[in-house]
Amino acid sequence: MNQIVPSARARLKRLAKRGAYDRATVHAVLDASVVCHIAYVLDGQPYCTPTAYWREGDRLYWHGSSVSRMLQGQGAGLPVCLTATHIDGLVLARSGFNCSMNYRSVMVFGTASKVEDEAHKREALDAYVERLFPGRVAAMRRPTDKEVRATALIAMEIEEASVKIRSGPPHDDEDDLAAGIWAGVIPIAETIGALQPCPLLPAGIAPGAGTEPYVRDARFDEILRANVGGGLAPVEAGE
Amino acid sequence: MNQIVPSARARLKRLAKRGAYDRATVHAVLDASVVCHIAYVLDGQPYCTPTAYWREGDRLYWHGSSVSRMLQGQGAGLPVCLTATHIDGLVLARSGFNCSMNYRSVMVFGTASKVEDEAHKREALDAYVERLFPGRVAAMRRPTDKEVRATALIAMEIEEASVKIRSGPPHDDEDDLAAGIWAGVIPIAETIGALQPCPLLPAGIAPGAGTEPYVRDARFDEILRANVGGGLAPVEAGE
Repeated sequence: MNQIVPSARARLKRLAKRGAYDRATVHAVLDASVVCHIAYVLDGQPYCTPTAYWREGDRLYWHGSSVSRMLQGQGAGLPVCLTATHIDGLVLARSGFNCSMNYRSVMVFGTASKVEDEAHKREALDAYVERLFPGRVAAMRRPTDKEVRATALIAMEIEEASVKIRSGPPHDDEDDLAAGIWAGVIPIAETIGALQPCPLLPAGIAPGAGTEPYVRDARFDEILRANVGGGLAPVEAGE
Repeated sequence: MNQIVPSARARLKRLAKRGAYDRATVHAVLDASVVCHIAYVLDGQPYCTPTAYWREGDRLYWHGSSVSRMLQGQGAGLPVCLTATHIDGLVLARSGFNCSMNYRSVMVFGTASKVEDEAHKREALDAYVERLFPGRVAAMRRPTDKEVRATALIAMEIEEASVKIRSGPPHDDEDDLAAGIWAGVIPIAETIGALQPCPLLPAGIAPGAGTEPYVRDARFDEILRANVGGGLAPVEAGE
């Protein structure tokens, strides 16, 4: 029950030691992002569309500008591959061949379909706001019926998934270690800048309303995971 | 000549004011990233694979772990859609419907094929190292013939491309502006952390060797653009 067992399409072909398929790791990497890329096919042409998503159990949701084309003419179901990736660092080895990156990436396979039920749509859209800004839904005006109808909501069960993680220092050839060149890791993370109030904001309104986790220089991936009750970095599957 | 004219597949279906197709903007957004996501189809199944890439003129290159599956059984050409995306901020409006993100995204269509010529491969792989770490090639040992043969290099001409950019504050409904809720932008950027020397690094070797641009707290996208002679942020196509 805790494995999202991969078929051939989700199984890693190379560097299998970097792969993980357990549900906790899949969820942890998914929960650390808000933007994914979705691959789908229309008329034989592959498309790769960035979109914001969120998770509830083993179901993913998304909405937004890409949706009209994505589900255009596809009726109830469109096979997709959804991938979310973090770059955690550049790995500088003594040779180009051993240079690498530290990263966390999750690839999910499933069938996307539109959610038509308005109550379900309202609940899911609220969950998306809360996932980013805990407590904000109660402070915002409610969506109008027109807004809910104008929003296309897509749901997808996670049918199969795999995670790939690389972390840690470079792995050089023994013979290269004595070279007089610096080697190591340059860490990279998405971090938060200083909040920019809307120019139309009346005086005297402090941030609040779900912005509390967005402290300057905080890591975005850690905020996202904490917002859904996750811990810190996911289990590392290997180097 | 300065337009990469979109056909139907690259043309934005929604929010066309956010779209841009000029070559300078396409290149600028491509040059600000090192990891993209590539959509392709094998046996009718779409895949979305993250991979590092680099640009030379209107040609993109990539290599790495995904390549063996991506070109497996495809012979000389595989139609792909390659997308690179930056999240620049979370846009908090007074209503959920008007919440958004600031981002830059470029979507490129083309046909990927393997580069077999070994001299071409060596040149391109050197260019990749230099693109990330200017001056590093001269300080590293040269790739062996075995390493070059073990590396699959993929090239793709940019056949069509489009850029989507959102920037600036939220756009709220007039009636919502008086609500007593904070609205504005939470900026997000990929930033550099403190360099982590390899545990096997002999004493007395300072970073150097192409690491100079990676100053703590610097923005990764700006380093990447500066490394290829680009300016700062690309022209903004609209809000």
